Amino acid sequence: CLVKVGLSQEDARTTADNLIFANLRGVDSHGVIRLKIYADRLRAGGIDCRARLGVVSQGAADALVDANNNMGQVAGVFGMKVALERAVESGFGIVAVRNSNHFGAAAYYAMMALEKGMIGFAATNSGPSMAPSGGRQARLGNNPLAIAVPAGKQLPIVLDMATGAVAWGKIFMAQQEKKKIPLSWALDETGAPTDDPDKAAHKGLIQPTGGHKGYGLSLIVDILTGVLSGSAFSTHLKSLYKDLQRPSGCAHLFAALRIDRFMPTSEFVSRVDEIIDLMWKCPPAPSVERIYVPGEIEQEIHHERLAQGIPINPILKEELAALAKELEVHAPF
Amino acid sequence: CLVKVGLSQEDARTTADNLIFANLRGVDSHGVIRLKIYADRLRAGGIDCRARLGVVSQGAADALVDANNNMGQVAGVFGMKVALERAVESGFGIVAVRNSNHFGAAAYYAMMALEKGMIGFAATNSGPSMAPSGGRQARLGNNPLAIAVPAGKQLPIVLDMATGAVAWGKIFMAQQEKKKIPLSWALDETGAPTDDPDKAAHKGLIQPTGGHKGYGLSLIVDILTGVLSGSAFSTHLKSLYKDLQRPSGCAHLFAALRIDRFMPTSEFVSRVDEIIDLMWKCPPAPSVERIYVPGEIEQEIHHERLAQGIPINPILKEELAALAKELEVHAPF
Repeated sequence: CLVKVGLSQEDARTTADNLIFANLRGVDSHGVIRLKIYADRLRAGGIDCRARLGVVSQGAADALVDANNNMGQVAGVFGMKVALERAVESGFGIVAVRNSNHFGAAAYYAMMALEKGMIGFAATNSGPSMAPSGGRQARLGNNPLAIAVPAGKQLPIVLDMATGAVAWGKIFMAQQEKKKIPLSWALDETGAPTDDPDKAAHKGLIQPTGGHKGYGLSLIVDILTGVLSGSAFSTHLKSLYKDLQRPSGCAHLFAALRIDRFMPTSEFVSRVDEIIDLMWKCPPAPSVERIYVPGEIEQEIHHERLAQGIPINPILKEELAALAKELEVHAPF
Repeated sequence: CLVKVGLSQEDARTTADNLIFANLRGVDSHGVIRLKIYADRLRAGGIDCRARLGVVSQGAADALVDANNNMGQVAGVFGMKVALERAVESGFGIVAVRNSNHFGAAAYYAMMALEKGMIGFAATNSGPSMAPSGGRQARLGNNPLAIAVPAGKQLPIVLDMATGAVAWGKIFMAQQEKKKIPLSWALDETGAPTDDPDKAAHKGLIQPTGGHKGYGLSLIVDILTGVLSGSAFSTHLKSLYKDLQRPSGCAHLFAALRIDRFMPTSEFVSRVDEIIDLMWKCPPAPSVERIYVPGEIEQEIHHERLAQGIPINPILKEELAALAKELEVHAPF
């Protein structure tokens, strides 16, 4: 489908790989559910898949990349590669990417550092969906940040968190199940915390995670991506689902750290194994079976789904089949 | 007092400056309330104020510093200066500091970047006080991270947040006022969330902010400080108030980013002014008077207290007076 709407084979593969990565890890909100809107934006001209990505400026540890409104995934992989190169040379690499688009799951880019034995970091701003603490209008995205840390015998630690309290999906589920939601999840349209998922869904907003802390983190991510790179920020950013014919102005930040500048990597990864073990062996609270480290649940689902396949709900299946038909592509179902 | 227990004039001044900085900003938990325990640790031999700090290794963007168990504040200022030097040369500087001690307010170090027109970052691990999500034993510190971003006409944005949901002080206040606390603040001694501040205070624990997100952030801070630097981490770290004669093994991370590698600093700071304005002008929720950006409340208190002085409660005043008497120093009250 992506090739049919204009992407090169390589760029289509990169984008598909990022979407399927998310589905395999159970993060279905960032998986193939996004294919249709990507295709729609590409066809409407809001993403320019023929644009050339370029390094605008580069120092020993830093670089600025302009994605020229190409695909977020293509810009993301390009940006993270530059960060890894800078880190190889200088110990640390940090790259801001401007004029990009929705890049899917942030963990994908952070984890590119793992195969180089480095610690990876990725963050992005996104269309406004949260208010600053005390506000009632969307002025910041549910901006995610991801960090990937290699381990030795254990699987890597991968923290990939949005700065909002919860994903919309959980609120929609509570609506269907007619259940109340915690007061810390959402605001109603007046800006008051609500435990009614219907009020949240009707012109309400997601609350930042941990109140003013999540607000602060979301603002910092917007500054280190949109403000620093010269891209759009706050309300200037276009949502993925609106203004399909116009560039979103999305911006990212990527970073990589060479562990072996601090200690032999083999020693570091044993120390990471030890801290993982210290978390696992913490005496559990009542009715808790296991304690997880960040990324562990996703890696277990990845393992399962690699073997058993990715479940696709009927509505999404229909949407994908219709898109395939429109683009004259053979749908696998 | 600090000179009397062995610090050089310069190191005593650095430490005092950090404590008074916190009091001026209204962060009294990190102010002169810590003087007594610092003096006690120094006298018990748990901090070695004559140790030489040294750069163990250094690359273009990175450095590893060994504090050799000197004061956390002295190591913090030393470490942040090295990070700023690396950033001047390479665009970004990142410094891990091992074998240090409690360094007070993290914002102090992050804000050292502001006078150089850079973005500053500081984090530290600390004595275990939180469980990983699902656990009921302290295995991670309430590890803080701070980021300082220069603005133009406005005051800088300074986010200084612990990864725990709340400070113990708020739980003690609820105890005194016989009020319930939100279920997201603390665990009782069995590891179950509790709204009873007495149960929280009796062998309970603080919960991570935002549940598993705060746990993930705290773990990442411990990895980037204690694990990466070769210092203590998780349960290996000594609490400030225990084992006074033994090194704490505390570790820090400092970083600085040269804004002018990405765009002229003057342009960046106007963009920061604009995003501050976008937050301020967000329509407020019911009964909200003003919307703040991170650090703004602290800066207002700073302004007030510079003019009116720092209120010291009678118990702390007595403790400080007793310490002054013991050390044969003239107390100012």
